[in-house]
Amino acid sequence: MFKVKVYVTTKANVLDPQGTAVQQALHTMGYGDVEEVRIGKYLELTIDTEDRAQAEADVEKMCKQLLANPVVEDYRYELED
Amino acid sequence: MFKVKVYVTTKANVLDPQGTAVQQALHTMGYGDVEEVRIGKYLELTIDTEDRAQAEADVEKMCKQLLANPVVEDYRYELED
Repeated sequence: MFKVKVYVTTKANVLDPQGTAVQQALHTMGYGDVEEVRIGKYLELTIDTEDRAQAEADVEKMCKQLLANPVVEDYRYELED
Repeated sequence: MFKVKVYVTTKANVLDPQGTAVQQALHTMGYGDVEEVRIGKYLELTIDTEDRAQAEADVEKMCKQLLANPVVEDYRYELED
């Protein structure tokens, strides 16, 4: 059984309008020091297998196929026992 | 200047229909080992200040006021120089 944490972020050269909106809201609320906000996804999965290599290979494929859009998003993940 | 990473997750006792939908999609795609999927937000902020205590206090307030909904979501954050 592995617990997997997946982080999906917009690529640096891709606009993030949601992040910009949040940054502007924070400025309006008085947090003028906030320079940049980027918003991504954070996923926690549990995978019921004992084969770590297989689990990693599966997560890599899941990210490419469903969890992230590799054209505009980066992803990284961590496996924990 | 601090880089802040904020993780916002649905509380354990709150339903996460988006996560359930992704889990079902993964099963359909052949990843039957995936037991649970929870989907949250991952935010990266840069804060232009040298005062770490102030930055932490600000981030705590931002989370409570805007970035997370404390009724149904948990949050945690890391500050990096």
